[in-house]
Amino acid sequence: MNDQEKSAIFPVGEKFESEWFNKTVWLHPLIPAGAALPVYNVTFEPGCRNNWHKHQGGQVLLVTTGRGYYQEWGKPARELRPGDTVDIPADVKHWHGAARDSWFSHVAIEVAPEKGPAIWLEPVGDEDYDGLR
Amino acid sequence: MNDQEKSAIFPVGEKFESEWFNKTVWLHPLIPAGAALPVYNVTFEPGCRNNWHKHQGGQVLLVTTGRGYYQEWGKPARELRPGDTVDIPADVKHWHGAARDSWFSHVAIEVAPEKGPAIWLEPVGDEDYDGLR
Repeated sequence: MNDQEKSAIFPVGEKFESEWFNKTVWLHPLIPAGAALPVYNVTFEPGCRNNWHKHQGGQVLLVTTGRGYYQEWGKPARELRPGDTVDIPADVKHWHGAARDSWFSHVAIEVAPEKGPAIWLEPVGDEDYDGLR
Repeated sequence: MNDQEKSAIFPVGEKFESEWFNKTVWLHPLIPAGAALPVYNVTFEPGCRNNWHKHQGGQVLLVTTGRGYYQEWGKPARELRPGDTVDIPADVKHWHGAARDSWFSHVAIEVAPEKGPAIWLEPVGDEDYDGLR
């Protein structure tokens, strides 16, 4: 965790307890909830990913450290490295998270948050995750 | 410029010719114009700042490299370093840019871009900028 904290531009923040992640995730509000456009720094420990989910207005990810993945339902996973960005369309089922052997952090920006909260679905199966390189 | 390019997570992009900046600025679209939420990486050469201006929906800045400033009309300038963030309210007159002796880059996210384009005003006077440390 120390190396992760040192390499990151943005603070790692606090441990975030959530049933929608299979391992530990940290959240730091860059622009706090309640602002017109809340922005979070999200840090995943190695092997940590979120469940499949959808955003009603979409979401933008800006990758800042480590190595991870983004996958849309029915498509191959895309590897993510620092500097990569993802424009997640509204209502598209997807997940994101760290590689097995790497910490991973991204800035997350909700698009049109007034359209409502994320819709959480089933976990990503080990049979899908374990084959990723 | 080479050191700036190497230290940056996000690409510096292309030179952006604009009458609203006093020196040279570079723009790289992280999420392109036309998307629901366009996001740009903006890089200022030393001494470069924009004119006073307002955003009709507000803007969020996430500082990634260098040293610079953000100032709202009638308030003291705030020094900005990597990891700092600015939540610029709608319709508040302000400017941002690099310190005299440093490159500076930030991610810029327009809030509610459907409210219309930025409103550009007068240049920041040398008498205001030259006293900044």
